[in-house]
Amino acid sequence: MSRIPVLEIFGPTIQGEGAVIGRKTMFVRTAGCDYHCNWCDSAFTWDGSAKDEIKQMTPEKIWDELFELGGNRFDHVTISGGNPALITAIGELVSLLNEKGIQTALETQGSKWQDWMKNIDDLTLSPKPPSSGMETNFEILDSIVATLLEVGNETIKVVVFDDVDFEYAIKIRERYRDVPFYLQVGNDDITTVDNDLLTKKLLQKYEWLINKVMESPQMNDVRVLPQLHALVWGNKRGV
Amino acid sequence: MSRIPVLEIFGPTIQGEGAVIGRKTMFVRTAGCDYHCNWCDSAFTWDGSAKDEIKQMTPEKIWDELFELGGNRFDHVTISGGNPALITAIGELVSLLNEKGIQTALETQGSKWQDWMKNIDDLTLSPKPPSSGMETNFEILDSIVATLLEVGNETIKVVVFDDVDFEYAIKIRERYRDVPFYLQVGNDDITTVDNDLLTKKLLQKYEWLINKVMESPQMNDVRVLPQLHALVWGNKRGV
Ligand code: SF4
Ligand code: SF4
Repeated sequence: MSRIPVLEIFGPTIQGEGAVIGRKTMFVRTAGCDYHCNWCDSAFTWDGSAKDEIKQMTPEKIWDELFELGGNRFDHVTISGGNPALITAIGELVSLLNEKGIQTALETQGSKWQDWMKNIDDLTLSPKPPSSGMETNFEILDSIVATLLEVGNETIKVVVFDDVDFEYAIKIRERYRDVPFYLQVGNDDITTVDNDLLTKKLLQKYEWLINKVMESPQMNDVRVLPQLHALVWGNKRGV
Repeated sequence: MSRIPVLEIFGPTIQGEGAVIGRKTMFVRTAGCDYHCNWCDSAFTWDGSAKDEIKQMTPEKIWDELFELGGNRFDHVTISGGNPALITAIGELVSLLNEKGIQTALETQGSKWQDWMKNIDDLTLSPKPPSSGMETNFEILDSIVATLLEVGNETIKVVVFDDVDFEYAIKIRERYRDVPFYLQVGNDDITTVDNDLLTKKLLQKYEWLINKVMESPQMNDVRVLPQLHALVWGNKRGV
């Protein structure tokens, strides 16, 4: 039986961002990423700092832990990372969750294809803007977007920190016109423990992004959202 | 040509709540309500305080004003109130918007049926919980929910202020199992101009509601959301 490198299992809580924002869900966070974004808010999944916490778990073991935590109080699981698309065995976890009648969501930057992506209910592709320091491989992303358009389960989400990122977001929007599109305000203070100050800064940044979108005729059929978990719980892990 | 009593036209801005949260949209706020909820955040639409601001407008005139404000920077209009379902002529406005290629959203408490409800893209039914002081007419609500289930354009949203409201929300959830369900945290300070304090209170209340939902096995396939416009702009009108 295949194993999945898991860093955190928690919930039930809300999904704080993107297409299923507010949805009651459990989280499974996998270890490992092929990117190293400047502002990654889960760098512990790939920078070695939490490597002693990684557990190699079978899908059954993950289910047991989800059920122990959530009991009859959940019907949705979000798989996040790191980049879970690096892990072929996620397919077995998704099948198991489907069998149990559990809906699934997953987020990836879109740098790697896995056949199991077709079986995720809500798949978020989140290509990274210039401020991340990463380069989008458009050949791979084009092909993932096209395949999932046939399934109808994908949305695109671009995190925006500055004007250059916003230009990138417009480019992505225009390249993939048929995919529901989300803009998310970036959190550029991922270490503070002063939650009131963080909330204030995030809401100011959110208002800035709203204004950019409102002025832009290229950004009409879009949604602009904050990260609700950051507003409520700050930079705390595991909520 | 029929006329519609209009109190405000503004935008583009974001839809701050419910099923299309974050969506770029224009707002048309109509005057008049058959309810008088204790905590109504738009009481000026029915309490007489803004009666001199009401304009009787044809759908064409409303379109002209929307276009003047929004130009080529919108493709979505939200019709709110008051209770817009009191106004038969909304049907002509919706047809006109459809012709122009504009998507529409509308919110009503579900106390009155109108045939044009079938032509709204995102129709939110928001029955009012006990803290409002209002009584839900379930005969009418049942029939609206059933008719719109065939169209597939409805969601239900219940605002929750306290434990008794939460019990009401569970009842609504169980009565209408097939309709996508949203819980929204109530704003019980609709006059303050201290936005930082309001944000803090709203986020605390939101966390309280999240916790209620997380503990409840009757509330699994649901979304819990705040009002984003209240977090960003406080109680300011017309944003
Ligand atoms: S792709 Fe995601 S997990 Fe990977 S480094 Fe970037 S932000 Fe972090
Ligand atoms: S139904 Fe809506 S507009 Fe009417 S009184 Fe209640 S909250 Fe206000």
